[in-house]
Amino acid sequence: MKRKAVVLTSGGIDSTTAMAVAREEGYELYSLTFNYGQRHAVELVAARRVAEAFGAKEHLVIHLDLIKIGGSALTADIPVPKSRTEEEMRREIPVTYVPARNTVFLSYALAWAEVLEAPDIFIGVNALDYSGYPDCRPEYIRAFEETANLAIKAAVEGRFRVKIHVPLIELSKAQIILKGKALCVDYSLTHSCYDPTPEGKACGRCDSCLLRKKGFREAGVEDPTVYA
Amino acid sequence: MKRKAVVLTSGGIDSTTAMAVAREEGYELYSLTFNYGQRHAVELVAARRVAEAFGAKEHLVIHLDLIKIGGSALTADIPVPKSRTEEEMRREIPVTYVPARNTVFLSYALAWAEVLEAPDIFIGVNALDYSGYPDCRPEYIRAFEETANLAIKAAVEGRFRVKIHVPLIELSKAQIILKGKALCVDYSLTHSCYDPTPEGKACGRCDSCLLRKKGFREAGVEDPTVYA
Repeated sequence: MKRKAVVLTSGGIDSTTAMAVAREEGYELYSLTFNYGQRHAVELVAARRVAEAFGAKEHLVIHLDLIKIGGSALTADIPVPKSRTEEEMRREIPVTYVPARNTVFLSYALAWAEVLEAPDIFIGVNALDYSGYPDCRPEYIRAFEETANLAIKAAVEGRFRVKIHVPLIELSKAQIILKGKALCVDYSLTHSCYDPTPEGKACGRCDSCLLRKKGFREAGVEDPTVYA
Repeated sequence: MKRKAVVLTSGGIDSTTAMAVAREEGYELYSLTFNYGQRHAVELVAARRVAEAFGAKEHLVIHLDLIKIGGSALTADIPVPKSRTEEEMRREIPVTYVPARNTVFLSYALAWAEVLEAPDIFIGVNALDYSGYPDCRPEYIRAFEETANLAIKAAVEGRFRVKIHVPLIELSKAQIILKGKALCVDYSLTHSCYDPTPEGKACGRCDSCLLRKKGFREAGVEDPTVYA
């Protein structure tokens, strides 16, 4: 029997590459996506497309009530910053930061992992081109893993311990794209933009688009994205 | 200006007593309740009643998509155990365990705390009469607190660190009730039963009812609950 892995899927480059790594390592894939009222709902379509392309055994979409909590340009009525330089991106944690997002995401992944008896959770965070989010750092991931193994019945009863896999944690966007290409990822399935047009085209100017463009450029790989 | 605290509220004895402690300590109360498709939806009514009685500044109800994940007698179609002895309760983690529940709850509390700039989170867990849930243990709470302070922008930027207050962690149910009585808690507002009748009456035989009855008996306080 194949080992099961829960893979957090956003429809973007990173989570898609993380899913490619999990498939390469022989896991049966359980794709987990969150609908948290993000402006870029088109990413939900991309996430489903990616999960199908990888033959995921299940693709679960969880609705999160983050809008009531607010506090982010991705879920509240705060403008998404455009055309920032890399230095500006690095200077501070941007308004697209969603409070405790990865903690909420990983909590649900943990719950599902326990029910599925799937000790392996894959998340495509990376600490380099990470847009400055604190919950993408390796020390955060290690702390969450430790908390998880104190939280769940399966670990306390000695049946299994949860492992949070972060195969991209030390890679730049260009290295991620090269890794994905080596694993035959079709990046035209993916979506990165924080602020797409009503037709779902990428804006080309938000932090996420800029990091994506730069990644393809530095990797020397053609960017399949259709920008507005 | 009063300091703000997020208090996790379930409408039960423990969270109500935790809220009484937070009020006694002078916090402005932000009550946070979860609707996770629990069988005992009557607890949502109790939670609102309690928050109003304590003059909470806000009472936020978050809908959680835990039913899709399943794995618990509280959210799936598994019978709630009845009339168990204390030894039976202690022997194993019961089917009413909800995978990663407190991790999901605390993640949302963390998100809201960051948005409110409220570094203090109160949760009424206790490690003694705790029905055997691993995510009610002090080591779990400490690990979550550490993870939280690696996750949020406010901590990374040095604005504040989150503290998870567990004022009941070492108390028995009887001691909790005595503490609450000393703080003038009206326990007739609260609800504990996992499996109430359609009219909302407590069954009197599930683990939660049995622990409640025992608590009042040992505290020498009259139980205001109307049992079916």
